[in-house]
Amino acid sequence: MSTDVPKTIIDATITAAFAEDLGLAGDLTTDAILRATWTATGAIAAREAGIVAGLPVATAAFHHLDPAMTVNAKVADGSRVEPGTVVAELSGKARAMLSAERIALNFLGRMSGIATLTRTFVDAVAGTRAQIVDTRKTTPGLRAFEKYAVRAGGGMNHRVGLFDAVLIKDNHVALAGGIGLAVTAARQRVGHMVKIEVEVDTLDQLDELLEHGADAVLLDNMPPETMAEAVRRINGRMISEASGGIRLETVRAIAESGVDLISIGALTHSARVLDLGLDCSVAKSS
Amino acid sequence: MSTDVPKTIIDATITAAFAEDLGLAGDLTTDAILRATWTATGAIAAREAGIVAGLPVATAAFHHLDPAMTVNAKVADGSRVEPGTVVAELSGKARAMLSAERIALNFLGRMSGIATLTRTFVDAVAGTRAQIVDTRKTTPGLRAFEKYAVRAGGGMNHRVGLFDAVLIKDNHVALAGGIGLAVTAARQRVGHMVKIEVEVDTLDQLDELLEHGADAVLLDNMPPETMAEAVRRINGRMISEASGGIRLETVRAIAESGVDLISIGALTHSARVLDLGLDCSVAKSS
Amino acid sequence: MSTDVPKTIIDATITAAFAEDLGLAGDLTTDAILRATWTATGAIAAREAGIVAGLPVATAAFHHLDPAMTVNAKVADGSRVEPGTVVAELSGKARAMLSAERIALNFLGRMSGIATLTRTFVDAVAGTRAQIVDTRKTTPGLRAFEKYAVRAGGGMNHRVGLFDAVLIKDNHVALAGGIGLAVTAARQRVGHMVKIEVEVDTLDQLDELLEHGADAVLLDNMPPETMAEAVRRINGRMISEASGGIRLETVRAIAESGVDLISIGALTHSARVLDLGLDCSVAKSS
Amino acid sequence: MSTDVPKTIIDATITAAFAEDLGLAGDLTTDAILRATWTATGAIAAREAGIVAGLPVATAAFHHLDPAMTVNAKVADGSRVEPGTVVAELSGKARAMLSAERIALNFLGRMSGIATLTRTFVDAVAGTRAQIVDTRKTTPGLRAFEKYAVRAGGGMNHRVGLFDAVLIKDNHVALAGGIGLAVTAARQRVGHMVKIEVEVDTLDQLDELLEHGADAVLLDNMPPETMAEAVRRINGRMISEASGGIRLETVRAIAESGVDLISIGALTHSARVLDLGLDCSVAKSS
Amino acid sequence: MSTDVPKTIIDATITAAFAEDLGLAGDLTTDAILRATWTATGAIAAREAGIVAGLPVATAAFHHLDPAMTVNAKVADGSRVEPGTVVAELSGKARAMLSAERIALNFLGRMSGIATLTRTFVDAVAGTRAQIVDTRKTTPGLRAFEKYAVRAGGGMNHRVGLFDAVLIKDNHVALAGGIGLAVTAARQRVGHMVKIEVEVDTLDQLDELLEHGADAVLLDNMPPETMAEAVRRINGRMISEASGGIRLETVRAIAESGVDLISIGALTHSARVLDLGLDCSVAKSS
Amino acid sequence: MSTDVPKTIIDATITAAFAEDLGLAGDLTTDAILRATWTATGAIAAREAGIVAGLPVATAAFHHLDPAMTVNAKVADGSRVEPGTVVAELSGKARAMLSAERIALNFLGRMSGIATLTRTFVDAVAGTRAQIVDTRKTTPGLRAFEKYAVRAGGGMNHRVGLFDAVLIKDNHVALAGGIGLAVTAARQRVGHMVKIEVEVDTLDQLDELLEHGADAVLLDNMPPETMAEAVRRINGRMISEASGGIRLETVRAIAESGVDLISIGALTHSARVLDLGLDCSVAKSS
Repeated sequence: MSTDVPKTIIDATITAAFAEDLGLAGDLTTDAILRATWTATGAIAAREAGIVAGLPVATAAFHHLDPAMTVNAKVADGSRVEPGTVVAELSGKARAMLSAERIALNFLGRMSGIATLTRTFVDAVAGTRAQIVDTRKTTPGLRAFEKYAVRAGGGMNHRVGLFDAVLIKDNHVALAGGIGLAVTAARQRVGHMVKIEVEVDTLDQLDELLEHGADAVLLDNMPPETMAEAVRRINGRMISEASGGIRLETVRAIAESGVDLISIGALTHSARVLDLGLDCSVAKSS
Repeated sequence: MSTDVPKTIIDATITAAFAEDLGLAGDLTTDAILRATWTATGAIAAREAGIVAGLPVATAAFHHLDPAMTVNAKVADGSRVEPGTVVAELSGKARAMLSAERIALNFLGRMSGIATLTRTFVDAVAGTRAQIVDTRKTTPGLRAFEKYAVRAGGGMNHRVGLFDAVLIKDNHVALAGGIGLAVTAARQRVGHMVKIEVEVDTLDQLDELLEHGADAVLLDNMPPETMAEAVRRINGRMISEASGGIRLETVRAIAESGVDLISIGALTHSARVLDLGLDCSVAKSS
Repeated sequence: MSTDVPKTIIDATITAAFAEDLGLAGDLTTDAILRATWTATGAIAAREAGIVAGLPVATAAFHHLDPAMTVNAKVADGSRVEPGTVVAELSGKARAMLSAERIALNFLGRMSGIATLTRTFVDAVAGTRAQIVDTRKTTPGLRAFEKYAVRAGGGMNHRVGLFDAVLIKDNHVALAGGIGLAVTAARQRVGHMVKIEVEVDTLDQLDELLEHGADAVLLDNMPPETMAEAVRRINGRMISEASGGIRLETVRAIAESGVDLISIGALTHSARVLDLGLDCSVAKSS
Repeated sequence: MSTDVPKTIIDATITAAFAEDLGLAGDLTTDAILRATWTATGAIAAREAGIVAGLPVATAAFHHLDPAMTVNAKVADGSRVEPGTVVAELSGKARAMLSAERIALNFLGRMSGIATLTRTFVDAVAGTRAQIVDTRKTTPGLRAFEKYAVRAGGGMNHRVGLFDAVLIKDNHVALAGGIGLAVTAARQRVGHMVKIEVEVDTLDQLDELLEHGADAVLLDNMPPETMAEAVRRINGRMISEASGGIRLETVRAIAESGVDLISIGALTHSARVLDLGLDCSVAKSS
Repeated sequence: MSTDVPKTIIDATITAAFAEDLGLAGDLTTDAILRATWTATGAIAAREAGIVAGLPVATAAFHHLDPAMTVNAKVADGSRVEPGTVVAELSGKARAMLSAERIALNFLGRMSGIATLTRTFVDAVAGTRAQIVDTRKTTPGLRAFEKYAVRAGGGMNHRVGLFDAVLIKDNHVALAGGIGLAVTAARQRVGHMVKIEVEVDTLDQLDELLEHGADAVLLDNMPPETMAEAVRRINGRMISEASGGIRLETVRAIAESGVDLISIGALTHSARVLDLGLDCSVAKSS
Repeated sequence: MSTDVPKTIIDATITAAFAEDLGLAGDLTTDAILRATWTATGAIAAREAGIVAGLPVATAAFHHLDPAMTVNAKVADGSRVEPGTVVAELSGKARAMLSAERIALNFLGRMSGIATLTRTFVDAVAGTRAQIVDTRKTTPGLRAFEKYAVRAGGGMNHRVGLFDAVLIKDNHVALAGGIGLAVTAARQRVGHMVKIEVEVDTLDQLDELLEHGADAVLLDNMPPETMAEAVRRINGRMISEASGGIRLETVRAIAESGVDLISIGALTHSARVLDLGLDCSVAKSS
């Protein structure tokens, strides 16, 4: 998990979040009660167990209001935390700390929630060859953050968007007039660095695809035993991905079919937030 | 539920979502396989029961790629849908329909998920005086959409941000040197159209607040019986809000204490998506 | 006067102002004549008496072109200045000082002009209970700056925009079918932290409003004696605001009617600039 | 007065103005009381005499919320209006008309105020050769609109910004080591389409400038008789501009000195708004 | 050549181009001389032979100033044109046509220039298996347009940016401690839809890479005979790309070595514009 | 060559370039292989002879990813470099150096290419009075950078855009009803700081223009002997500019006709990139 979200994206998204929360008038409560010169120290701690993700983003949120604030991450993104684990310590302007708290936690909680859910799935398939991957079912505007959180949780990323890989779905196949024609059309359009994956719903479709070849195949909504047969037929000639309504209760059986990848929309569309909180202590100064 | 999200916000957010999904190269798959002249009809249907919200936003997504697409909403935001209920019918350019599908559904699914969860809480307190309200624990960049979805689900909105109302929390009280000083400082800073709410953790703090007065009181993490005593002491002099870790299992008991409002962060930070899908049929033309 | 305009708004507005003044080619004159290495010291001084406002904004303007420039405010926003009073001393790159001068002064002069006009009204009602408040008649794009300047002048802010409070005007009452129906419709739509104010033109309308209740009443264009009768009838049950063409010559009489607030559009739509100037001295270096 | 502000600038500025006024929640009052389907007709009328400017901008404001609204200008920008003169008639969605009213009037009132003040100065120098021109003392973010309003009032524009012409002020002359050196440095830097103007404070400086030549001379703060002597010495070899604290009471005497141009900062920094209002009538429909 | 640049990118880039050319004051010349009501017809024609690309972008430029202008493309992007070939016919507002002319032609000329140069290379390797591909040496801000122009010229696109594919260069290999370690590190980081290409400078490095495997190999700066030997050793197990200073005089020899791809930075960094012009005829109306 | 591109423009353009190259996922290769803590030193060197331009822009690119990177320019923009000349030395974070390399070089190569081509033309007319000037045939979005590069190469800038000077072309003359009417219309519209240039195709048109006067004349597509006759007739009363398809082979003859300026579109529309490269050495640290 070595890659951060590009700085430009973090900056723009943080700025939009503050615009939303501060409006034209700023933090009425904090500005009325705290003097501008007061400083504070604080600690962000987990209030439940999970996987933390988003500390660089939370840091950027505090720096938006106080560029000189010290933010020391005590754990790395991707670490497991327990209730009470301190994930970062802060020291800086008191107003900035209070006014940025909610935005920092909104990012951190959501990203940690995704990482935590991802890890649950990753753990459920431990020992199999299957990797857990995300989908394009991400929150509008936050895809870079959510795909990063999936990686922090031990998952891998599927294509980022419609632009960086080809995924031929059933609609496309029908319109192209068959799997072979669809793959050919895609191959003619895209460059040599773009992979092509094709969705198949049945073993017959898989056989047809195997005749034409592709980089990967999406096995849609197959029961485990059919999935296993599909893996046998593929025999390593393509990357195999299982997809379609896979839940925590069913993921292990799918994984044991031997597929390379299991994609799960819920990682990003239905994770609940991880509960983290900020405790702070303000030093009044003249 | 009469208010839409301002058009400027919808436009900017939709544009950012397409930038994220189309990148520099667009929808490689669809552009390779469908001709630009082909048209399509489609229907968005619920795949599970819930409350729908976000149809104007989904419509804007399709219009982003095809301004002339016909999008007929078959139900209004806030309606209950069952599996199979068609929520909108589409007719327009085939490429635009396929390329916009995921973004439209990402908005619609998230907003409907929030509306559905909100309605669950609203139903759970039916017959009491309590209203369900949201918090600032929203997804960065999507607050306007999520607060709207809460209203679609039958909830009400708490303050929009730090700028439109005062909420004096325990930190602020401690720094101001007491509840009375905190309220006075806030009142001096803000105009006559801004309401002031104060968080109290105990009945003693409540008594102190009642001496000074405010527009509303947030009763934090009190058991139902303490909440009921608080309501008796307030006796209609302030709006009373229950807050703090309230779950579906506990919300009814809290509501029966007689509070005016119950605020629930989970409405926006832990709703799972409502499953909706698009089925479409493409007409090939020359 | 403890609150600044949010940093994001200052940054964006300053950037737009420089885009407007520097275009693609920059400051042709200064760049042709001054070497990039030269430094300068300068002082911004008032050229007439008034109330200063906007020093943090002027500072941000100089920092836009020279982040390392030293800008020492010698007085605080809200201070009264006399001709010759130095309000800030500067030290930094000479080119940046000359090129940013006009933008810094354009902000400072406008904001100080508003603060000065506000103070004139505030002084005119000294000793009464009336506070001077602004309106939405602000310069497009500069509302945050102008509302801040009103506070710096000793006034208070009315609602920021259409979004943070309800103000039911005569049009709305007519369309709703009466004051009571209008208030009810608004109350159903908005959350508990949003105040509702209603405009009335006559004492009869006021009586009708008093039956239904609201947070505040706008008494539109009433002569002082009627205003006084209105205040008697309200008897502290609502906040009372006088509005409508109130001028410096008439404001005292209105204030003595006992109203809580007097709103004056001219504070932001017809203030003239306060005259301030920058004198600087350049040190030529190699 | 044939040129409009570029469309891109109008669009961006209007969008920013609505963002400011509608926030995340929109027009709470109007949305609560008016149904989305209701339509309205309206008329914008002057409430005092003056010169109108900004009708295309006001039109764009209404179109922002209702692209199909009919907005018929009844007079052209630059026309003189009397109290009661209808300047535009509107027909469209009722909500859009009420919600856009203030923004449309804020632009129209400010721009008309500038046009009106400009015309007052223009009329004061009627019969002389002097033209009234503006300065860079404009409202940040609105320079294009304000320079257009000056033209609508019968004035002419000075340079737009620091980038489109050279204006060598006393500071620059001192730093360059003399007028000749300053002009030479500027001429070397800029292209052949850029004019050069030089500020002089005395007749001696003027003589020095006449030796070196320039496109225009700014005669700063000279009494009328000195100004007249300056005009004699210039003898048509350069454009002559009078500047510096010129007021309505003094402008005629300055004009009669024979200068080509009189620049007046107050046109844009101290104009008060022209009072215009919107009356509308709503048709309730199902 | 079936894919356009995403609409959002076209809109944003066109808007920026007009901001650059119209500034705050617009087209001074055209606005002074042409009346707003005049209309015009026009034709864009090639003034030299080449491949046209960018007609949808030129169209968008005209529509920016006159959304109702009729723009009929007479040829498709990718077509060969001769001197005098009309590529589009226009009909609309005269001012818009003149004011948008240069921006439309600036896009069209640059994109056609790239398409033309690409076609020259494509023709030079006709009959071999080699395809001509572009690089990341594009004009900042115009990558989407330039990659599209390469496709219009018959070339294919290499990766779009640093984000959609892995290209391990000599620096990376050295830092990873060898080709195998570099490939492994990349494979662990990226998802299954991301291809990995590795640069090799010698046949020994190629052999090392063949042991570890990758999706593609960049053969850097090899003479044709070495290239041919490399192709033999690869034997279809990876996509082979020749790169490094390949010119029109040398490209055929490289292609005959049997490589799959030849990447050429000059396509986008050193194409000269294709000369096209607009002739128009204005109809004066009242 | 004393003026930089305004900082706001550099920042916005650099940010857009990184958005284009880093997408949502960043530099996959570098992030996979280099640790975040590693540092590097590097040198940018010319690989062919030419004139360098754009070092401040390249510096800004590296600072975008590592604000603390040391970038020491070893030569000034406008300097002639030979193959191997080091133009800048770098020291900072290794990832930032590798990830920013291409963007920095894309700016530097393009700008240096323009400066180099400009210098070639400047040298070709050495000893004549003619100056080489650019046109509006610039790359969309990069006009400020390209006009600066022309100055770095020893050329001068024509007008920046349609907004800062009047250039009356044949179309305009025809529509105005003659040269005199066109000049008059323009003079009425624009302020005193705006110059007016008129295009003439024949000596007869020139004579007509000389009767009415203007600041400059564009002599379009005349052979050298006609140009010389035109210069004689102008006799210093206007600035004379030769334009229209002038190539390196023909520019000297044109210059010897005595014109003041020669404008050449190819400077910005058909310059090829100057080849520069970055060599860097990474220090692995823990």
